[in-house]
Amino acid sequence: MSRPRLLLLSSSVVHGHGFLEYAASDINTFLNKNRVSTVLFVPYAAVDHDAYLAKVRPVFTKWGYQVEGIHQDNPVDAVKRAEAIFVGGGNTFLLLKTLYDKNLVKLIRERVFEDGVPYIGSSAGTNIAAPSIHNTNDMPIVYPPSFNALNLIPFNINPHYLDTDPNSTHKGETREERILQYHSLPDAYDVYNVLGLREGSLLLVDGEMGVLKGIKNARLFIKGKPPQEIEVGTDLSHLFANQLKASAVRL
Amino acid sequence: MSRPRLLLLSSSVVHGHGFLEYAASDINTFLNKNRVSTVLFVPYAAVDHDAYLAKVRPVFTKWGYQVEGIHQDNPVDAVKRAEAIFVGGGNTFLLLKTLYDKNLVKLIRERVFEDGVPYIGSSAGTNIAAPSIHNTNDMPIVYPPSFNALNLIPFNINPHYLDTDPNSTHKGETREERILQYHSLPDAYDVYNVLGLREGSLLLVDGEMGVLKGIKNARLFIKGKPPQEIEVGTDLSHLFANQLKASAVRL
Repeated sequence: MSRPRLLLLSSSVVHGHGFLEYAASDINTFLNKNRVSTVLFVPYAAVDHDAYLAKVRPVFTKWGYQVEGIHQDNPVDAVKRAEAIFVGGGNTFLLLKTLYDKNLVKLIRERVFEDGVPYIGSSAGTNIAAPSIHNTNDMPIVYPPSFNALNLIPFNINPHYLDTDPNSTHKGETREERILQYHSLPDAYDVYNVLGLREGSLLLVDGEMGVLKGIKNARLFIKGKPPQEIEVGTDLSHLFANQLKASAVRL
Repeated sequence: MSRPRLLLLSSSVVHGHGFLEYAASDINTFLNKNRVSTVLFVPYAAVDHDAYLAKVRPVFTKWGYQVEGIHQDNPVDAVKRAEAIFVGGGNTFLLLKTLYDKNLVKLIRERVFEDGVPYIGSSAGTNIAAPSIHNTNDMPIVYPPSFNALNLIPFNINPHYLDTDPNSTHKGETREERILQYHSLPDAYDVYNVLGLREGSLLLVDGEMGVLKGIKNARLFIKGKPPQEIEVGTDLSHLFANQLKASAVRL
């Protein structure tokens, strides 16, 4: 049993910044601290894996890391020898279905929890770090065998969290309405707390310690309580209490 | 074998109009033509069924129709004796899961296709009239046993279709990007054409004849072709070719 080390980004791109740019210093600190030299990239949230790798590789190369694509080899072997894992954004349903199809869900979880392999997720890659993908914004273009995900943290994430636009004439549900609807489900359903990560915010996790980082605040939805604003720098460790113990049972 | 009669609304509310108001004359014409006096309302897309019924009933009462709530009785019996069915909007995943849980998916389909029971859907209720819910905008707050839906029409629907805002600073996918991503899936996946219904547009179907109605144009996504604008009044019957024949096989 090791400490999970996670860096969960709301998105790869933020208005006014290049690809992964707003999170560059957090990513570098995270990888350096864990003495990583090669990152295993998981492009399964996109349809074209090679194109996605070609976009990600130069960014990490510039920072001094090597990048392997999980699709370039036997994916199970690649995860087994990974020094660090980066799961990119795209479609959460496609990502999770592909991980199940390739028998990677339990394996990635074991690598993170038992071997302490550092995990970076962005958008869909952050969504699947949660217990379930019930709070993704993505279109359900494929049907995964379950909505249960990697369960690396004890609450769900809504990435790309968007505040309600008071001037909007659109009548589809707002983001807050959708999350509150989730929390209004009858008790028969498993419902998790939800951290809404605005584009530009990210969550750093080390064992049972969690802190909000990045350049944007987040919004926390605890079932039965009013939503709370979470400022950059806020310690969120209380959300992780007993996480290691509970996870040991679930593994 | 009868002719399916459908009225599929993008949404119940449109900016500047009351609940169902923009579609009032189409709904009344549709129900009168089919000599309906009582409408069976399906509120399963919402959590609070009674509250939803209390919102819908006065509107139909004002128009001269009685409304029964499917949840007030044995739902299978209610569908078996329904003169017309109205499935309201809300969460598409919750709606479809509830229909499966209560063994109503095949039954509603049979009532529409074999007995010609008129079907009105709005938003989520329109989504489930399609072969699958792969193109809903809703948050997947519950896990249905399948994404396959009522299959009353041979293509999928994206309700509340939203044009890309060129001034947006948000980096989440646009609606068009999401639908094109669905169409870029590998051939192993079943992929349907998608009709994007802007809020205020609706689709009237009578057998193999379909026409766009309402107060807003729609956007049609045929796999492998550029998206097309569809003006109110456009005959869409070509999308239904061989629908009855194919449906007979599937029933």
